[in-house]
Parts: sequence; structure tokens; C-alpha cells
Amino acid sequence: MNQFKEQINKYAEVIAKVGLNVQPGETIVVLSDIRAIELVRAFTTASYELGAKKVIVELSDSNIQQDHMKYQNIETIEDLPPHIKVKNDYYLKEKVSMLFIHAVSPENLKDADPEKIAALTRAGREVAKELSDSRMRHDQPWCIVGYPGPEWAKLVFPELSEEEAVTKLMENILKTVRVDQEDPVAAWDAHGKFLKSRAKWLSDFNFDRLKYTAPGTDLEIGLIDGSQFAGGGHKSRGNLEVKVNMPTEEVFTSPDYRRVNGVVSNTLPLSYGGQIIDNFKLTFKDGVVTDFEAEKGYDVLKELLDSDEGSRRLGEAALVPVDSPISNSGILYFNTLFDENASCHVALGQAYPGPVPGANEMSAEERDAVGLNSSLTHVDFMIGSKELDIDGITRDGKVVPVFRQGNWVE
Amino acid sequence: MNQFKEQINKYAEVIAKVGLNVQPGETIVVLSDIRAIELVRAFTTASYELGAKKVIVELSDSNIQQDHMKYQNIETIEDLPPHIKVKNDYYLKEKVSMLFIHAVSPENLKDADPEKIAALTRAGREVAKELSDSRMRHDQPWCIVGYPGPEWAKLVFPELSEEEAVTKLMENILKTVRVDQEDPVAAWDAHGKFLKSRAKWLSDFNFDRLKYTAPGTDLEIGLIDGSQFAGGGHKSRGNLEVKVNMPTEEVFTSPDYRRVNGVVSNTLPLSYGGQIIDNFKLTFKDGVVTDFEAEKGYDVLKELLDSDEGSRRLGEAALVPVDSPISNSGILYFNTLFDENASCHVALGQAYPGPVPGANEMSAEERDAVGLNSSLTHVDFMIGSKELDIDGITRDGKVVPVFRQGNWVE
Repeated sequence: MNQFKEQINKYAEVIAKVGLNVQPGETIVVLSDIRAIELVRAFTTASYELGAKKVIVELSDSNIQQDHMKYQNIETIEDLPPHIKVKNDYYLKEKVSMLFIHAVSPENLKDADPEKIAALTRAGREVAKELSDSRMRHDQPWCIVGYPGPEWAKLVFPELSEEEAVTKLMENILKTVRVDQEDPVAAWDAHGKFLKSRAKWLSDFNFDRLKYTAPGTDLEIGLIDGSQFAGGGHKSRGNLEVKVNMPTEEVFTSPDYRRVNGVVSNTLPLSYGGQIIDNFKLTFKDGVVTDFEAEKGYDVLKELLDSDEGSRRLGEAALVPVDSPISNSGILYFNTLFDENASCHVALGQAYPGPVPGANEMSAEERDAVGLNSSLTHVDFMIGSKELDIDGITRDGKVVPVFRQGNWVE
Repeated sequence: MNQFKEQINKYAEVIAKVGLNVQPGETIVVLSDIRAIELVRAFTTASYELGAKKVIVELSDSNIQQDHMKYQNIETIEDLPPHIKVKNDYYLKEKVSMLFIHAVSPENLKDADPEKIAALTRAGREVAKELSDSRMRHDQPWCIVGYPGPEWAKLVFPELSEEEAVTKLMENILKTVRVDQEDPVAAWDAHGKFLKSRAKWLSDFNFDRLKYTAPGTDLEIGLIDGSQFAGGGHKSRGNLEVKVNMPTEEVFTSPDYRRVNGVVSNTLPLSYGGQIIDNFKLTFKDGVVTDFEAEKGYDVLKELLDSDEGSRRLGEAALVPVDSPISNSGILYFNTLFDENASCHVALGQAYPGPVPGANEMSAEERDAVGLNSSLTHVDFMIGSKELDIDGITRDGKVVPVFRQGNWVE
């Protein structure tokens, strides 16, 4: 990656400044596969240069992860060592900023037993519940970014050599995060403002529900009275602007988990737990998935839906035009961070409290009462296409076209 | 390292079988820099294939470690997160087997503030004291091995290109651990038996003290009545044979920390805390270093000696002939694991209880009473050369030549 040295430094700087908005004296945690070590190193230096007190780096290796899944039995997988919980509690107490770097092939665990993957995910989520809730409330900053691991790059560009594939994926990732631009920080500022203006336009209608129509999709998603759409950034630990995803092209809200009805089909593959789920369809009745089918990854989808009560309900609805930069690149990343920003999507599982005014301070019961879903999972899947129309239905029954043929109406 | 793929697998297998003697159902911990990832992966698979229940891999990166030392202040360095102690306690409770892979340049932290290095070492040792004691008692298996990181290889072979240096260091390391041989496991078995026979020859004299004479060295080291020499392997967690160092060429004992007198000069550089100490001389009086000098790394040596009370006293005396395979290679590794096996050496700090019959079961007070040193440190340094003579003085005053001109007398 020598030819990208300068751009990797620029990328690291944008993540530190725009993504996490690192402040002097903060503790930063980086979770990454060793495939992204160049970015990890550059980001560590960038954070220290911005005055971070300490940067904690947790490195993993996807080959070794394959071995764990192959050889460990479920009891061992579930039996997490006690220091994992203590570590998460420390990250919570210290309100650390967390950077997650995705570099691993989404098919890394395709040969693993889905029950083992489910056990690992469940065990990990249980000991990270409070930390994850804190991130979802934006009490502590977090950011997810991508980096071209060779196996992932080969999956995206199977026709290229490994070296060519890595180069091409790198170039495209750098574009999506605006590092190809002269002043990426300014570009992110402008982009954030645009997404915020879209969110405001939607919020002002205070829609009762959204109605999605496309081949294989006929779905109504109820919205919470007074809820807001968000996008283009969040305020974290006080009033500091952060971006939780880089790239981000979405405007989203947390729907009423009790008022989802109809059927919805995915339009891009879903990478989950190191496996790919594709060509699947979910049927909702009164908010709950009552039926489902999948041509690929049926067992993994089943495990996902059976994670807990909330994993069969929706926690997010997000709008992304097909005319977005990532979508226009025509590249299928097999990675939700990128593909969800090329497509309208919804998420099974936990809802972000942010879109409902006052919900950050609500108890679990109060959140449930307003319709915010609760789950240990939060998994986005893509439902956007050039054939998707979305209408907003106002509380007095007026139908407002929002998306036509996959793009904003205005 | 593609040309070494098969040998790395063989190396990993020897470590798992001979070094740690991995048993079904055991938990294994690997601590390594990412530079040794090929060996880490191969060892992980080898351990699982031998029936390990779980392999925990802790990966680090020496570039990032440089940043930590550059940017963190001493208070931050000392303030270890609480999960580190919990993790060490878990490793102790589970009696995990631990593999330490050395791949990093011994000069990695040469630009760091010695006070910071001392603070890091101290903080780490305090929370690892019980775990470290357990390893020293061989209640749980451990093994240290080497792997040619590029920066280390360039230090050893500065005249070669990085790639050539890595290749040459790899070839030499593989020789020292007998992986170049047809059946490395059998070769280790024979080698272990030879070292044990040397240890028995020494133990049978029950020497009162050893007397070292060489240019810059005139030192007497008192030995504990009834103590044994050991070498070529240990029994761990019951009666299972392990090797704590690969390579190992030494026969050693734990001296009486109160009866060390005279001066001793090092003959090979000492790598400690990411820096190199060289051309140094220590003066002992009644067991304590009362004076010292060093042409290189004086400050680091001072920090080392000032770690605690026991760090100014000896905890080990080890005999290695200059005619040993590592010594004969003529390579200076700048790494104690290798260089100590090319040279007679002694260690400042903690004594292994093993050489004193019954000491594993003794209280701290009882160990002190027989003359076993106690410290949070244990740092070997090399004092062997072709000009070194060693005599053993028996309890009835007889002088037995042990080494002449750096080699065994018989």
C-alpha cells in the first residue's frame, strides 16, 4: 500500500477530526483486523497529535478467527473470559471514543456453523449491552470505516488479481469518504449540511407512516408521533459533531416497532456474522416478522431473527437515493457500511433513541411505550432500487410522494 | 515468507509439542507482535489440532508501541485499565499455557524516555506478579521463541537488504530450534537429555560457590546448600516435560542472593525495555550491586537496578560453553533469548524456586531465608567469553575446574 501512504494519512486524519472529533485528553479505542494496520498506525498517530491521552488498539486476525470457529465448541465460545466484561465496563466508564475498521472478507466465516456464530454474537453482545446502549445514545463517540483487506477486495473484484483488487477497492473507499478531495474536512462539512436539510424536510411533515412499493415489496412502516429524521452527523458527549459511519449518505429515523405490516424483499446481499444472506423476503404483521424465506443463508437469517424478541422487529428506517455516489459507482461491496449507503434500508433490532425527542433520558419501559424497539441486535439490510417508490402518509391522511424510482421526489 | 511456509508449520508444531507440550482441553495464550503473524497462525492451528480447548491471541504492533511511549505521559502509562489485572488473574486461575514470540527490534524503543519504559515495565509487572510467580514455579507452561521481524533482522545483518536479512535471520533461528533437522522432536529429546546430564554432574558436587575469572570479571557467586542445577527442560503442571526457551543451551541454578562478591563485566549487549545496554560493569558486595558503570544505556541500567530491592541482587547463574551452536554461528542477535544461549550469563532479580528442593511449596519468608532472591524483575545478561574460567569450590574447600577458556572442562 506504499502508493497510498499519503492518502492513508489523510484518511486517518479525517476519521480523527470528522468521524470521532478527537478532543485533547480523550481515550480512544481502535478495533481492527491486522489487514488494516497501516490505517490503524496512521489513525493512532493522528489521534495522539490531536491530544488524545491514550489510544488502545485491539488487533485481531480473520484467519485465526476461522480457526476459533472451526475448533472451539459452543460452550467454549459462549464462555467469555471475565475480563471482556470488565474491559467493556471500563470503556463505558471512561466514555472512550471507539473506531471500528472493517477490512475482513464478509465471507470470512462462510464455512462456520451458524449456531457457533450466533453463540459468539450473543455472548459478545450480552457483555457489551451497556456500552452499546451508551454508543447508541451518543454518550460516547464511535465511527465505522472500511479498509481493503485482500480477501474482501477479491470478493468485490473477482476478475482482478489480488493486488489490483486491493488497489481498486482502496481507490473507491477513498472516494466514498471524500479523501480524494482537496479538503476532505470541508467536503464533509458541506455534505453533512445537505443531509441535515433533507432530514429537516422529512421531519417537518411528522408522517404517520411510510409506504414502500417495489417488486417483492409492499410495506408500511409506522412512525412515532413527533419523531425526527436524522442524518449527516450527530452530537456526541455534549455538543460535539461526529459521524458514526464514513461513508454516510442516509437520512433515517427510528420507527414505531408495533406498526410494521406487509412484505419486504432485500435488493443487495446482507453480510452478517461472516456469512452472506441474499434473495430473502420478510413478512411483517403488527410489527413482527411472522414469515421469511431466503435463497442464500437461510440458517443464518433464522439465527438472526431468533436472537431475541426484538430481533424480529424493526429498529431503523433509512432513505438513500439510488443516485448517491456509492450507488452510482455500481460497485457491490458486500459490506453493509458501504452498501447501506447505496440503498434505502431498514434494520432489524435495537432502535436509536435519538430521533425521538427526550428518549435518551427515558427508561426502558418508557421507550417501549412510545414504540422504540429493544434488542441486542441491530442489523441493517438493503431494500432500495430504481423501482422503489415511497410515500409519506401524514397524520391527517394526506399522501406525500417522498421517493419515486429510487430517488428523492424533490 | 512464502518460501518458509512448510518450515514455519514445522516450527509451530515443535513449539506446541515440545515447548508447551499442549494437552487436550487446555487453554493457550499467545502474545506476539503482528510481524510474526504467520507463526501465530500456524501455532494456533497446531494447538487446536493437539486438542486445545481455546487459543487466545494477543496481537501487538511495535510501531504503535513507539507512539504510546512518545505521546503518553507517565501517569497514563502507569494507569493500567482494570481488565489487565482481571485478565492476568483469569490466566492464573485457568492455568493457561503461554507462548511469547519475540519478533520486534530490541532497539524499538531506543528513542523513548527511560523513565516511561521503567513505568510501563513496573506497572505491567505489578499486575502480573502472581501469574509470573506461577509460571516460575512451572505451575503453568510457558515458552519464549523468536521470529524474524524486519527491523530486528536489519539490526542483526545491517549489511543485507531487509528481505535478505529476514531470510538469513529466519534460517538461523530455524537452526537454533532444530527445525532444520529431519525429526525436530527427536532432536529436542536428545538435546534435553544431554543438558540434563551436564546439570547432574554439577549438582552432584553441591558446590559452596562458583568463582568466575575473565578480563573485567572477578566474581564469586555463593550457592545454596543442597541446590540443584537444571537445564534441558522442566516438569510443568504435574509431570509433563516442557521447554521454557527455544532455543536453550544452558545449565543453570538459583544462587544465594546474599553471597555474591566482586566485579563482573558483560560480554554481549543486553536488550532491555526496547533499548540496548552495553559495555557495563557491576560491583557486588555481600550480594548487592554497590557500584555500576555503562558506556551505553547507563540510564536504562540505572532504572533497571532501581526497580526494587531485589533488582540489585542475582537470581540466576547459568553456564553455556562458547562452543555451543548459537555461539559458533558467530551471530549477535541483540536478543537475550538467543544471546544468553551463546554465553554464560547471570540474572538480576527474581530467582526460580525450582533448583532448591521444596522451594516451590515455601512461603516468601522461607524462600528468603534459604537465599532465593525476590523481585518483580528477572533480567539475564551475558558474561561468557573464550577468556572465562570458572571454578567450583566444594563445601570442604576443594577447587574443581568447571570451565576453562569458555568451555566445559570435561
